Amino acid sequence: MSEILIHEVGLRDGLQVEKQVVPTAKKLEWLRALMASGLDIIQVGSFVHPEKVPQMADTDELFRILIAEKPSNVLLSGLALNEKGVERGLKCGVELFCLGVSASETHSQKNTGMGTEEAQRRIIAAAQEAIKAGKRVQVSVQSAFGCGFEGRIPEERVLGIVKSYLEANLTSISLADTAGHAYPDQVRRLFGEIRKLSSAVQCTCHFHDTYGLGMANVYAAMDAGATCFETSFAGLGGCPFTKVSAGNVATEDLVHGFHRVGRRKDIDLSALIAVAKDVSAFFSRDMQGRVYKTGSLSY
Amino acid sequence: MSEILIHEVGLRDGLQVEKQVVPTAKKLEWLRALMASGLDIIQVGSFVHPEKVPQMADTDELFRILIAEKPSNVLLSGLALNEKGVERGLKCGVELFCLGVSASETHSQKNTGMGTEEAQRRIIAAAQEAIKAGKRVQVSVQSAFGCGFEGRIPEERVLGIVKSYLEANLTSISLADTAGHAYPDQVRRLFGEIRKLSSAVQCTCHFHDTYGLGMANVYAAMDAGATCFETSFAGLGGCPFTKVSAGNVATEDLVHGFHRVGRRKDIDLSALIAVAKDVSAFFSRDMQGRVYKTGSLSY
Repeated sequence: MSEILIHEVGLRDGLQVEKQVVPTAKKLEWLRALMASGLDIIQVGSFVHPEKVPQMADTDELFRILIAEKPSNVLLSGLALNEKGVERGLKCGVELFCLGVSASETHSQKNTGMGTEEAQRRIIAAAQEAIKAGKRVQVSVQSAFGCGFEGRIPEERVLGIVKSYLEANLTSISLADTAGHAYPDQVRRLFGEIRKLSSAVQCTCHFHDTYGLGMANVYAAMDAGATCFETSFAGLGGCPFTKVSAGNVATEDLVHGFHRVGRRKDIDLSALIAVAKDVSAFFSRDMQGRVYKTGSLSY
Repeated sequence: MSEILIHEVGLRDGLQVEKQVVPTAKKLEWLRALMASGLDIIQVGSFVHPEKVPQMADTDELFRILIAEKPSNVLLSGLALNEKGVERGLKCGVELFCLGVSASETHSQKNTGMGTEEAQRRIIAAAQEAIKAGKRVQVSVQSAFGCGFEGRIPEERVLGIVKSYLEANLTSISLADTAGHAYPDQVRRLFGEIRKLSSAVQCTCHFHDTYGLGMANVYAAMDAGATCFETSFAGLGGCPFTKVSAGNVATEDLVHGFHRVGRRKDIDLSALIAVAKDVSAFFSRDMQGRVYKTGSLSY
């Protein structure tokens, strides 16, 4: 894999807020196009209760189908909220487990029914189960840059969770700006602090563009040493259990920016644009991404 | 004025692409609200032929009305394309003349009917006329980061125009990304080069968000020493004489980002949001800005 990685999370973080359930066949169409485009990691769905998030009810089925046909350079990831989610994921072929703790007590309760402390203990245990089963694991701090309910999140709280991950030898760490409160100075500072904690840490970032700073935050994170970028095709996204929500930075916009500096030219941008256009047609609305509307620059 | 300045260009760069002509009374309503909000410089319009850009036909009248009532901490600017524009501007009270040369030969011809070389000579002469008349002047390089017609613009061409400005003692210089082709590395490099040319130079940046990098470019320019930011309320904008066009970075999104780090708290963000909402209502469509839709963070 390349030195900068893209983790496509639109199928999970994008679709979970959409009221219109996407049929499994349509998801497969999008997933197959995304897998063929050269993106590194693709999140297929999350292992939550189907009644709580009906949009994710076919996650296990999607994994079973795709694991047999995916190209070898693509990793398929799934989000688990607890041990049960890991159990389900192990049964259907998840390659990379994404597990996280919210730095916001309120968001943690609303999202998982657990407080931050309990979540931290259980998420680390679940991560270790997945590792024992031979799987890759990424752990995240959600609401790392602010919370729609609580406002400011103390940086020590975020760093405390990160330290507990590192102590458990979990070094692939994502900071997620669930509510979109992050700003570039803060992003640079927090990723800088984390990189000081361990030379083994691999930093991933995840930004929602609620207040127009999404892409600026991505570049700040890159400056501060983040090497993996979680984005959503067409700019889909938003957490159903947060207050004011907006889509993720759009995958095709990110790739377009990389192409401008000659990076990740192995990723097929026109394929990504075609999928984003189809997403817009499916939901019959303008999506947050820009490049799928304006077309790309090819020089 | 403060160490970082905001130059509101929506009335000019925003409205010139809109087919629906905004009545003078509505412009006055927006201009008065923007003047009262604490923004530093407000561009009232441009001195182009009314038949070519009917949206700008009332520029002289707007200046005559506003110059008598504007708060003392606000500068009113007007864009002139040539000596005639400066003459008109001198008669109606322009305080800051904005004059520019496109680094793209094709864009220059389409926008002004002159090639880059002729434009450079005449713009510098016009700028010197304005200075003789006791006015402030800002000179710009348009299409500084790429052109919808020509693609890549050699950096030497941009730096050549900047050097000719500096030789003429014109030190307030704006680099405008007319087509929205800029990317953060390029922005940092080009502003860095310009600041090496003269310690007296004051750098302004102007970014369109065509490909989703607008705000990231603003932060890159700020990192590289730009201190003045041209933005449009509600994210209005786009040049009618370029190929693929999109709005400017939204003023209220920029101010919201500044407020997050405690800067320019003297600017009334809620007033800006109210104007942006009214713009959206006037044009009956969703505008490009984000904060006017999501609301602002107040912590």
